[in-house]
Amino acid sequence: MSAVEGGALRVRTSRRVRRVRVALAGCGVVGGELVRRIGAGQRELAERHGLRFELVRVLVRDAARPRPGELPDGVLTTDLGHFLAAEAEVVVEAIGGQEPALAIARAALGRGLRLVTANKALLAEHGPGLAALARSTRGRLDFEAAVGGGIPVLRALRDQLGGAGVSRVRGILNGTSNFVLGRLAEGVPYAEALAEAQRLGFAEADPSRDVGGQDAADKLRILAWLAFGADPARLQVRVRGIEPGADRLAADAAALGGAPRLVADARRGPRGVEASVEPVVVAPDGDLGRVRGADNLIVVESAWNGVVRLGGPGAGGAPTASALLGDLVRGASPLRPPVQSPGGAPEAEPHAWVISTRAGGGAERELLRTLGRAAIDVRRVLRGPDGVRAVVAGVRWRPVELAVRALAAAGLQPLATRVDPEAA
Amino acid sequence: MSAVEGGALRVRTSRRVRRVRVALAGCGVVGGELVRRIGAGQRELAERHGLRFELVRVLVRDAARPRPGELPDGVLTTDLGHFLAAEAEVVVEAIGGQEPALAIARAALGRGLRLVTANKALLAEHGPGLAALARSTRGRLDFEAAVGGGIPVLRALRDQLGGAGVSRVRGILNGTSNFVLGRLAEGVPYAEALAEAQRLGFAEADPSRDVGGQDAADKLRILAWLAFGADPARLQVRVRGIEPGADRLAADAAALGGAPRLVADARRGPRGVEASVEPVVVAPDGDLGRVRGADNLIVVESAWNGVVRLGGPGAGGAPTASALLGDLVRGASPLRPPVQSPGGAPEAEPHAWVISTRAGGGAERELLRTLGRAAIDVRRVLRGPDGVRAVVAGVRWRPVELAVRALAAAGLQPLATRVDPEAA
Repeated sequence: MSAVEGGALRVRTSRRVRRVRVALAGCGVVGGELVRRIGAGQRELAERHGLRFELVRVLVRDAARPRPGELPDGVLTTDLGHFLAAEAEVVVEAIGGQEPALAIARAALGRGLRLVTANKALLAEHGPGLAALARSTRGRLDFEAAVGGGIPVLRALRDQLGGAGVSRVRGILNGTSNFVLGRLAEGVPYAEALAEAQRLGFAEADPSRDVGGQDAADKLRILAWLAFGADPARLQVRVRGIEPGADRLAADAAALGGAPRLVADARRGPRGVEASVEPVVVAPDGDLGRVRGADNLIVVESAWNGVVRLGGPGAGGAPTASALLGDLVRGASPLRPPVQSPGGAPEAEPHAWVISTRAGGGAERELLRTLGRAAIDVRRVLRGPDGVRAVVAGVRWRPVELAVRALAAAGLQPLATRVDPEAA
Repeated sequence: MSAVEGGALRVRTSRRVRRVRVALAGCGVVGGELVRRIGAGQRELAERHGLRFELVRVLVRDAARPRPGELPDGVLTTDLGHFLAAEAEVVVEAIGGQEPALAIARAALGRGLRLVTANKALLAEHGPGLAALARSTRGRLDFEAAVGGGIPVLRALRDQLGGAGVSRVRGILNGTSNFVLGRLAEGVPYAEALAEAQRLGFAEADPSRDVGGQDAADKLRILAWLAFGADPARLQVRVRGIEPGADRLAADAAALGGAPRLVADARRGPRGVEASVEPVVVAPDGDLGRVRGADNLIVVESAWNGVVRLGGPGAGGAPTASALLGDLVRGASPLRPPVQSPGGAPEAEPHAWVISTRAGGGAERELLRTLGRAAIDVRRVLRGPDGVRAVVAGVRWRPVELAVRALAAAGLQPLATRVDPEAA
């Protein structure tokens, strides 16, 4: 039994914590972030999921490079055989590419372990074979991080939406090219925009698979596998990237009053699955046009479940590590009871409000007098035949509520509505 | 072994199909839709998930009412005891409200069965207790359908986003009130808009919990449980609905140039979780303002994973039944291999395109001549100092590709980009 301190949030129960031994292959941008997250999230993982992840071995190429301080002593190895011999329940593969990732995946699943991976290229080529291996050994294969970074799309397709008769999956699957296209639309030249994406950690050192569309195509193959049961390795995808011609693409889109996007699209037709990754001019205020920076968006159309949109951060170490950690947690933990009390009456944040009353009969004077008495500053007054409206800002709900009660008692039929900062 | 015919999509493997015995409580809008979906989806469920769901008993209030044709003979019962004695692996609760839903949930989980439910009111009150019961008996509790209809938000919060340091969950959780607010903004009076929602099957016969905000508050409690570990039954939520005052609310929002929305919001602060459900004036082109009809949107903000947006159909029988079916599948099935071949070279759909070339030196004439030869009709020509652009429509990729090759051979530096219908 391990009692867990809750800090600012009061913890009401102590609970058993289960140790899960993890072997991690790769400790770069994503793997390193996962190490930091496991370290920093130790208390929350114990509280919420009853789990403690222990890194027992970490495979790296260069043992001399600096690593996160959270890494336990003596776990680093550069030897694949030594790594594969680790006593672990879960192997996390965060290397990328085909080898040695494939050898690691086969060894882990072959021994009936859980494999968690972010490797889209590996899954696009060998996903079904690895899934079959996992089934035969009663191992487990999870790869939420492979598509859509921190957006929980794969599990949704696999389970929730899988039975909904999915007819089409499309969206923006490569954060690097979306970031670059956004900068191009702002007038930044291509080479500069790409260098910026690399500085910010979205793009790989070699970004050719990002801007060439192959990265998005790998992800689309995986989506088509889960959505339609299509074999990802055999799916034909028409692939054109944003390069060559990125600057021209941005100019052509601007000439049409649209926004350039690299769109991945797979739809189930009578003769099979039609799939493409290519630049598309989209409406700037539509679903795809509103995807900014390195974000991703996946739109799933289904016969039974309408149109579901899943959007969020698609690139970078933190979202990808979040997805890996989600897979680690999901495979290991049942739903836990609440761990914190609500912490007493919540003090509402200050907001902007519109307080309206009926028009005429001195309503405006009474409204302003009441708000003045409550020390609520009025920013604007709007007068119409249907009523008087005072816009106020930086006020908590409680004084607004008291003013509304006073106005009601005076027969002014008041209504107070919060105003979102974006609308204010 | 059961070989499954694939119809238009060729099936390459035959596979074992596992029978899962299901007892269903409630056969109204949601339960009836689930019965139809299990019947209509039999082949796909077998192919993709290796599952066949068999309805062994169905609890109804009135045995004489007409039921879906897919219902097996002799399964209907009006007797709770007879229902609870059914030999089933899974109990689906689609009755709603507190009793007999709570008795059914406790009986099922008490026997170590799986319980799948869409009952937000039950979970907001008794969720943690039922989860604890499931853990103690090694039963299983799933309730994706309780929040966000067909949007896979709960599983995402429970697993994927749970380790990401969620700081805030907000959004539009009640499809009925959102539909009504949308119609009010179009000038339809409140009573008429509400009657329309009822005709369309979004609103309950008694919609007071929808328009009063209590339905959204129940859902927010469940979200706060999964996002923050807050006890849903003890969470204080400031609740104001769109009624009374819906027409005035719409007028006030219009006067500010905004759109009215019923917004649910829970954020983790230093003193606990602050939660509210109330009308808010939002920007019409912002995330919340763009949620139309009976759709829902949930926005999850986290320290490690940025902002994730999950949107889709939030009300109605079909999305809710989709979510129930997703829970049924998820609990019973590991990932299966692909079931269909890609079906040969996909013939691309016709699209609109912009085909651009460099400017000057007879480029426009050559561009139009080349497109004319390819029998591609030009809708518009845009001329600029940086190039000439021809907009064409209803053309497949193959002729566009051939024209681009001819233009490249003529030294015109062509680029062809698809144009989305929304942007055309």
